[in-house]
Amino acid sequence: MTYNTIFTAAQEAFLFYKNIPGKEKGAFLETLAEILEANRAVIVPLAVAESNLPEGRINGELGRTTGQIRLFANLVKEGSWVEATIDPADPDRLPLPKADIRRFLTPLGPVVVFGASNFPLAFSTAGGDTISALASGCPVIYKAHPAHPETSKKVADCIHEAILNSGLPAALFTHVEGGIAEGQALVKHPLAKAVAFTGSHLGGMALFNLASQRDEPIPVFAEMGSVNPIFAFSKKLENELVPLAKAFVGSLTLGVGQFCTNPGLIFVPKDQAKAFENAIAAELHDIASAPMLHPGIAQAYYDSIQYLESREELRWVKVADPKHLINGSTALAEIKAADWLRDSVFQKEVFGAFALIVVYKSEDELLEIAKKLHGQLTITVWAEKEELKNQLFLINLLEEKCGRLLFRGVPTGVEVGYAMQHGGPYPSTTAPNSTSVGSNAIKRFVRPIAFQDMPQDLLPDALRDGNPLGIWRMVNGEWQK
Amino acid sequence: MTYNTIFTAAQEAFLFYKNIPGKEKGAFLETLAEILEANRAVIVPLAVAESNLPEGRINGELGRTTGQIRLFANLVKEGSWVEATIDPADPDRLPLPKADIRRFLTPLGPVVVFGASNFPLAFSTAGGDTISALASGCPVIYKAHPAHPETSKKVADCIHEAILNSGLPAALFTHVEGGIAEGQALVKHPLAKAVAFTGSHLGGMALFNLASQRDEPIPVFAEMGSVNPIFAFSKKLENELVPLAKAFVGSLTLGVGQFCTNPGLIFVPKDQAKAFENAIAAELHDIASAPMLHPGIAQAYYDSIQYLESREELRWVKVADPKHLINGSTALAEIKAADWLRDSVFQKEVFGAFALIVVYKSEDELLEIAKKLHGQLTITVWAEKEELKNQLFLINLLEEKCGRLLFRGVPTGVEVGYAMQHGGPYPSTTAPNSTSVGSNAIKRFVRPIAFQDMPQDLLPDALRDGNPLGIWRMVNGEWQK
Repeated sequence: MTYNTIFTAAQEAFLFYKNIPGKEKGAFLETLAEILEANRAVIVPLAVAESNLPEGRINGELGRTTGQIRLFANLVKEGSWVEATIDPADPDRLPLPKADIRRFLTPLGPVVVFGASNFPLAFSTAGGDTISALASGCPVIYKAHPAHPETSKKVADCIHEAILNSGLPAALFTHVEGGIAEGQALVKHPLAKAVAFTGSHLGGMALFNLASQRDEPIPVFAEMGSVNPIFAFSKKLENELVPLAKAFVGSLTLGVGQFCTNPGLIFVPKDQAKAFENAIAAELHDIASAPMLHPGIAQAYYDSIQYLESREELRWVKVADPKHLINGSTALAEIKAADWLRDSVFQKEVFGAFALIVVYKSEDELLEIAKKLHGQLTITVWAEKEELKNQLFLINLLEEKCGRLLFRGVPTGVEVGYAMQHGGPYPSTTAPNSTSVGSNAIKRFVRPIAFQDMPQDLLPDALRDGNPLGIWRMVNGEWQK
Repeated sequence: MTYNTIFTAAQEAFLFYKNIPGKEKGAFLETLAEILEANRAVIVPLAVAESNLPEGRINGELGRTTGQIRLFANLVKEGSWVEATIDPADPDRLPLPKADIRRFLTPLGPVVVFGASNFPLAFSTAGGDTISALASGCPVIYKAHPAHPETSKKVADCIHEAILNSGLPAALFTHVEGGIAEGQALVKHPLAKAVAFTGSHLGGMALFNLASQRDEPIPVFAEMGSVNPIFAFSKKLENELVPLAKAFVGSLTLGVGQFCTNPGLIFVPKDQAKAFENAIAAELHDIASAPMLHPGIAQAYYDSIQYLESREELRWVKVADPKHLINGSTALAEIKAADWLRDSVFQKEVFGAFALIVVYKSEDELLEIAKKLHGQLTITVWAEKEELKNQLFLINLLEEKCGRLLFRGVPTGVEVGYAMQHGGPYPSTTAPNSTSVGSNAIKRFVRPIAFQDMPQDLLPDALRDGNPLGIWRMVNGEWQK
């Protein structure tokens, strides 16, 4: 199939699919979740073989994937997500009568999705981007990730089975294999209306630039990872040294550090630095190095470490062991805040289980750090309540630098819910006003449309008098059901 | 002041202003509305002199401007617009406890606003873009439109008086004069977080390209106008020939055709074309040509007309009279749908009171037209109910091409309300997921942020337990107050 054939068919499918009831879209997604679960015994070994991730993790990831699918199924079956808004007519208004205006969210059209290597299921073929696009009413052209081609193909088969079983047009989902050139051709196609991407900064920005320079620019929702700093305060570290060291090491080494919310940067006060490093070192004893997703990622990890080893500002707490290249052995280094502030290279994400411990001497340094900090998916603050009382300005600054601000625990483990925000200021994403996890992820693939004086029988159900769908609607500025 | 001084001061003002209560932001905006009204006797003559628009229109526009300001004042005083969303904790959840996550919309930071020549008040210095940005919590750096410098300066003085009277930092609003180079420097400044623009396609795209190519790309909300087609059906025209011709001519010539929702394209069936053209011609007799905003705009209008006169596909119903160049004399031409379909130059906006009447022979032609049509702010359908029964697919296609779809009246006259959508697919805007008119305009200048396990006393009031602001919030997926 040529790309033109693919997109023309997708556009045709779109014009039909966007108008079917939310209940039918939801039923289709539920069918997909069931088919994926029925194929667990085939999918899991494929993904394990292609990702080097342990079976337990992949089994869990399949659960997360079908959980996400069911969340979006429920969201579109319930229907309130379209933000139906009605400003009723007022024919008696002076000097001019007021028209009847009704607004809701309508899907954009064919969406190009690029999957992530580090989540072969939950952020890939039937992952959050694909599912939120399908839930919104958009067809998806999916560019398979070359790191897990067989897993991707198998999941694509499941999607097509679900489409077939639901009596929907096959062109609702197309699985495209290939490399960079193929991905670029998809983004450039005139019928493409949006792009979703999870991966590296380099990859995300290449797509963003391509999409911005099209004859018709289209949005790119690229989640490009971040270093997810933790700001640790003295009393908190003193009071919970071992549990915090344990939590930190667990989060750092989870999935061999291959998470976009992996904490790669931690700011610790001078008086607790030594004790905290010792506690971390003790925890690290129990962590065996494990294979990374693929040799290219492991190579990039060791290349970054090697560069950092050439920097004399760093003191190494634990050196990575590149003996078995594919294994992502944990590495930890310490740097003084004054040195860290001098060079933004120390803010660069090292994809893998590496963290930089930045030792600060004063609150003034913390404020400087917060000002210089690049945009992040998450920032975590570890402090006792009384330590936060004098830190309102710091917290104010940190809010400017992240999509999610945590005051307990670690940034890994992204809840799928209504309030989740997985996104953040540039360079963590190209679209800080969007999330790629949680129910609001659906909002990336829609735009508002207003109907003025539209006859009742032409209006979408969501906007008809009497609220036939029984959804939450804003009428005259008030929410009602 | 250097731009660096301006933005540094704006950023500092932002870190304070974003956190003040919505009630205080609203009171500031109300003060501004009062000050503008108190200065009506000075502002109106300035704007009349600089825009060539009649006093009645400018008086009305000042009313629209203060009306908009009060709408946003009420919106932020009430407070529900922040989409407060709470997913409560569940410490007993298995296998892992669920964290408390709360999300709301937070302002982006300094916004650069470019005003429009055709609305020296309502879309300029204290217009919808400036006010929705200030309402959201963002400071504004406003680039004055060179077509009405004195009006702009006077309104800027009013804004500064309101800031002073409200005890807010002066850097909340900065008035910058200059030309293209100055505007570009503002968009390029690293502390700028978003751009709002109303004007030409050329101007909007220049800013969009600049903003996309920054080290940190930022969003550009450019409303670049459109031709706002009307699709007229046979029986409707037959039944309401004279009122429709009158409505069309009124909308076409309003403000000398200098509205972004000016209907520059009308599709009429062959059997009614002659009668409709005659009816229009009769209405046009009563319309005197009037001066356009400035000589440059009048020159561009006549240049476009001159080009179109060179095209032999067009038959002229009324020729523009360039005798007095500044006057935008109405022009009307007719073209066959088959010819119109062949060259997209016939879709280009002619800014002024020009309309192209496209005569169609069949419904197939209408579908072809709908497929080829570029993105529009508005599309209007004039049809009797029974004529629409067979046009569901056409309407389906038209929805893909506009931000607002009308079934009665004319596209000029954009209501300011909750359900308004003033925006549309490219090339009418660079951001089809946004509106520049109505309460949702505020959503352009914010992004979501989630707080995880944040102590109650640090949470913004909108997200605290007990709902101290009494706003609409989504708790566990349900709206409540």
